[in-house]
Amino acid sequence: MRLEAEQVQRLIREGVPMAEDIDLRVDSIEPNAATARVPFTEKLVRPGGTLSGPVQMALADATMYAAVLGTLGEVQMAVTSNLNINFLRRPGQTDLIARADVLRMGSRLAVCEVQLRSQGSDAIVAHVTGTYALP
Amino acid sequence: MRLEAEQVQRLIREGVPMAEDIDLRVDSIEPNAATARVPFTEKLVRPGGTLSGPVQMALADATMYAAVLGTLGEVQMAVTSNLNINFLRRPGQTDLIARADVLRMGSRLAVCEVQLRSQGSDAIVAHVTGTYALP
Amino acid sequence: MRLEAEQVQRLIREGVPMAEDIDLRVDSIEPNAATARVPFTEKLVRPGGTLSGPVQMALADATMYAAVLGTLGEVQMAVTSNLNINFLRRPGQTDLIARADVLRMGSRLAVCEVQLRSQGSDAIVAHVTGTYALP
Amino acid sequence: MRLEAEQVQRLIREGVPMAEDIDLRVDSIEPNAATARVPFTEKLVRPGGTLSGPVQMALADATMYAAVLGTLGEVQMAVTSNLNINFLRRPGQTDLIARADVLRMGSRLAVCEVQLRSQGSDAIVAHVTGTYALP
Repeated sequence: MRLEAEQVQRLIREGVPMAEDIDLRVDSIEPNAATARVPFTEKLVRPGGTLSGPVQMALADATMYAAVLGTLGEVQMAVTSNLNINFLRRPGQTDLIARADVLRMGSRLAVCEVQLRSQGSDAIVAHVTGTYALP
Repeated sequence: MRLEAEQVQRLIREGVPMAEDIDLRVDSIEPNAATARVPFTEKLVRPGGTLSGPVQMALADATMYAAVLGTLGEVQMAVTSNLNINFLRRPGQTDLIARADVLRMGSRLAVCEVQLRSQGSDAIVAHVTGTYALP
Repeated sequence: MRLEAEQVQRLIREGVPMAEDIDLRVDSIEPNAATARVPFTEKLVRPGGTLSGPVQMALADATMYAAVLGTLGEVQMAVTSNLNINFLRRPGQTDLIARADVLRMGSRLAVCEVQLRSQGSDAIVAHVTGTYALP
Repeated sequence: MRLEAEQVQRLIREGVPMAEDIDLRVDSIEPNAATARVPFTEKLVRPGGTLSGPVQMALADATMYAAVLGTLGEVQMAVTSNLNINFLRRPGQTDLIARADVLRMGSRLAVCEVQLRSQGSDAIVAHVTGTYALP
């Protein structure tokens, strides 16, 4: 059974405390894709700063997971096995939005691509590829 | 001027709010290497759980930064350009310790390797390589 | 001065003997993008087989280089500093085509994404990201 | 049944034509590790040059495969799913030697680390991590 964005957000927040720390929101779930965001808050940045690398990695990882969950339904024990991130530009002082696409859903591995952008901008802030090992 | 572990820890915590959230500790700084840890606390895990992928990535990134700062001194604007992580095993319910080694310190890029282990265990929990762009 | 596909192909073949071994062809050069291919030949595969991983990596690397050369003109000493490849599907028994896009052209680093597909198919055979260090 | 270096070399050369092109030699096989080399020949370099990136990637991939075969015995259909390489230094004009270590041998994935060095030098020429999907 496919899951809705709200259910996926709940599952991720239950499973990963850091997802709650960054106030992760799952915006939408489609077959083989998901969109999620980290709202910009003063809590996550120093004065004058922007969202840090670890926040970007946490967002990318969670959005990949959302795309996998949204495609397969509730998967117990799917775990990230590899994540590769290229940091391209400083994000803006606004929400950071991730779009994850499943490049291949195999029986044992799901490979995803994620693009991070600042709200209202087309420029890619970070590009991520990752692999999930499926149970 | 080379920096001590305590100074590096302060610089990282000032620069990256998430480093404070995970209570990052820099244990030691050597030429071209650094060791840091995330103390195991209930705050970072669900009941019965272990430290999540994003916590591991945050620790690895910070420890690479510590190795770069410890080698070059206070570098303004050194930023991670690439990070690749392979998650190998679930960490134990104990401190997670990262050892970062500088593989190459160039004039414009520093490439590092990081191994994450649970305290008291030789097994590698996660293996990371990363690149810092130097100013 | 921007270069044409033919000039880029010649530069790559002069610089990398393996590009000649795999009969690399540069199909087109656009601003921040390039397309290249490896013609399917019996020489590169075993009976019944398809193009191997190393051929795919060589093609991806050369196509990134083509995109960088096509954008910047003849760059002396641009070198690959990082390449990450996810192998997704076995390629077909036909030409393998790579499309490289420059995600960010900085003053010191160029980051590219490459998608490999078999001729006549939309399915991605391999997904690559890479970084070039610019002189 | 564990395989000897000579058997592994034959299997790799049968499976990957490029391994023959670069005259790949498997030096030794140990549990969870393998050593292999590309002999320096004028055929693989331009005058004054050194072994190219694609040759380094091909060597690293083959050495990981050798470590997997040497540990598991003859594995049908083990395929590389991910390879990440950081190019650190130009290799010397001599044999290029790869040492692969298995970081984790799971039931479905084998994760390896490879270090490439020029013969007679301790400096790491390239650092590689890779994942093999096991059948």
